[in-house]
Amino acid sequence: MSATVADPDPTSLGPPAPRTDRPVPVADRVEAELAAFLDQRTAQLTGISADLSVLAEVARAAVLNGGKRLRPTFAYWGWRCVSPAGAAGEDELVRAAAGLELLHACALVHDDMMDASDTRRGQPAAHVRFGRFLGEQGWAGNARSFGAAGAILLGDLLLSWSEELFTAAIGCLPSDRARAATAQFGQMRTEVVAGQFLDMLAQSRGAFDPAEALRVIEFKTSKYTVQRPLLVGAAAAGGSPELISVLSDYGVLVGEAFQLRDDLLGVFGDPTRTGKPAGDDLREGKRTLLVALAYQQADPAQRELLRAGIGDPQLSGTGVDRLREVLTATGAHQQVEQRILARAGEAIRRLADGRLQPDAAQALTALARAASHRTS
Amino acid sequence: MSATVADPDPTSLGPPAPRTDRPVPVADRVEAELAAFLDQRTAQLTGISADLSVLAEVARAAVLNGGKRLRPTFAYWGWRCVSPAGAAGEDELVRAAAGLELLHACALVHDDMMDASDTRRGQPAAHVRFGRFLGEQGWAGNARSFGAAGAILLGDLLLSWSEELFTAAIGCLPSDRARAATAQFGQMRTEVVAGQFLDMLAQSRGAFDPAEALRVIEFKTSKYTVQRPLLVGAAAAGGSPELISVLSDYGVLVGEAFQLRDDLLGVFGDPTRTGKPAGDDLREGKRTLLVALAYQQADPAQRELLRAGIGDPQLSGTGVDRLREVLTATGAHQQVEQRILARAGEAIRRLADGRLQPDAAQALTALARAASHRTS
Repeated sequence: MSATVADPDPTSLGPPAPRTDRPVPVADRVEAELAAFLDQRTAQLTGISADLSVLAEVARAAVLNGGKRLRPTFAYWGWRCVSPAGAAGEDELVRAAAGLELLHACALVHDDMMDASDTRRGQPAAHVRFGRFLGEQGWAGNARSFGAAGAILLGDLLLSWSEELFTAAIGCLPSDRARAATAQFGQMRTEVVAGQFLDMLAQSRGAFDPAEALRVIEFKTSKYTVQRPLLVGAAAAGGSPELISVLSDYGVLVGEAFQLRDDLLGVFGDPTRTGKPAGDDLREGKRTLLVALAYQQADPAQRELLRAGIGDPQLSGTGVDRLREVLTATGAHQQVEQRILARAGEAIRRLADGRLQPDAAQALTALARAASHRTS
Repeated sequence: MSATVADPDPTSLGPPAPRTDRPVPVADRVEAELAAFLDQRTAQLTGISADLSVLAEVARAAVLNGGKRLRPTFAYWGWRCVSPAGAAGEDELVRAAAGLELLHACALVHDDMMDASDTRRGQPAAHVRFGRFLGEQGWAGNARSFGAAGAILLGDLLLSWSEELFTAAIGCLPSDRARAATAQFGQMRTEVVAGQFLDMLAQSRGAFDPAEALRVIEFKTSKYTVQRPLLVGAAAAGGSPELISVLSDYGVLVGEAFQLRDDLLGVFGDPTRTGKPAGDDLREGKRTLLVALAYQQADPAQRELLRAGIGDPQLSGTGVDRLREVLTATGAHQQVEQRILARAGEAIRRLADGRLQPDAAQALTALARAASHRTS
């Protein structure tokens, strides 16, 4: 996610660099923790057998792939709502936050395998890398099933590692704070699976239901990407119940704005900026709030277009254009735009109730704007 | 695994019931912990959405499915090497040990999906249950891909839950012991993935290599099923370095005996007792020590039979008989039998060095015999 207004550095998602006391942006610190952790684990795996070097290499590629480190960034700013920059425990919190990114790497590796998505950020997905490895060896065996099995195992490994990195780091903080942060992390892991499962149900059911679309967003994006990471950080810093409540609301609001923006970009975005072919979300049949609202407000002819076009993998460019017209003519496009701005605005206003450290309030304001205004 | 000699209760794998101070066998205590944990998590999931009840139901079916609870049983006896029955912390240890079983449930759910094995202990596998659920709803959507995705997500959930149950329970013990047990649990999780990956490599490579077969056994079975669970328990009880060393050796030896017996039963066992069609391991092309030794010692005509038959999914009953003859004529069958007895005997002798609680020594002796002598 890149910012258009307040965030000149799309990779850090932090506030403008000169304003922080630390010269190193949080995403870079997370990157360094991840690289160090993967070095250790590569040694562990190759210590078991040199044959495991391919597993270690694909793990490294899956984790150190230029991700935006959104979840660790929110965890950091959750912590910084309470603690000034450089306070005791900050390095441990950043390390624990890097653990959230290993969880996300697991989710992406498994997701790409389930969806048969062969690239991730322009690079081969993990299942593709394992399949290619098999081909290069000139062995018998089916490259596709080897690739799929390798990706499942790698995801399981990343999920275990995620918890190990998180727990070891958070355990260096006072035990009541560590316990509270760990409980948030546990919620995050159950909720992301719940959200993904609800999304599968919604797509299989094939209904156009705004309430269902919002519920999927709440669990699959808002809580997983924004709310729980923020609360991990705030709980680790010993945040008050009032702060937890404020960040909880902010997280759900900003997460929703972020996802709704993503949905709009998937249909109306500039493919040269988003990196995704325009209309792919329509072809995949995603049950977004955008299409659910359009369907609800459509006349019979428009409904027929939506029913026939959404989820049609062969949908032409003209077909995509026609659906875009329906999404706009029904008012759904405009409604979603308004909802994004309202959610982001409400989130920013809510921050005033939390007695945040000033630079954290500034950073979270910038993040809310970036989530809602981004163009890629 | 059921016992033939010293263990009259094939489901508990403990020593004869009248000898213990506790009336409830460890497997039953584990079962009760798992049921209570799943009740909590069912409430958590259905609290998110009633639509998640299917996820909770398949989770319950995958965990409470009549499994032998081998890993918790070994964890319990590892603990009992140090602590007399009913010592403080035993209930917490049993609860943590139940966490190992959730890890195993994850492994089975993911394994069955990767191997497209549609039944598990005579019941539908998780991916089959999810696929059927979709069919029953009468929705669009592909039952097979829905089933596969559901199984991946469920396995991820079970893996997270495994750690949560383990960590919450082990955290009730003194912190140095909790840390040592947690380190063993971490090793267990990385090693089982490593073992499964090495197994995939071995099968894809298609070589007949005794050393490779033994290495797969070491990580995929010995450490995962016996050694690490024992060490989790012993570390949780504050076992001495000498005890850890003894149990470490015992675990590798008994695990190997267990797996080699499994390999023999897969080829020579009575299908009415093993519950698996005879010869399926040969059709699947498993690279066992048995076939690797046979290949090494075969004459050219026998080698040709092995090369052609092993891994041939269409292999006939006569073909299986012919391979059995080769496995026996080359001496491999007998060698593996001898190795099983030698490993189990060595494991039992090694126990004498550990100054174990007498009833734990007796139980581990019975378990070693059961692992090596079983017929199903």
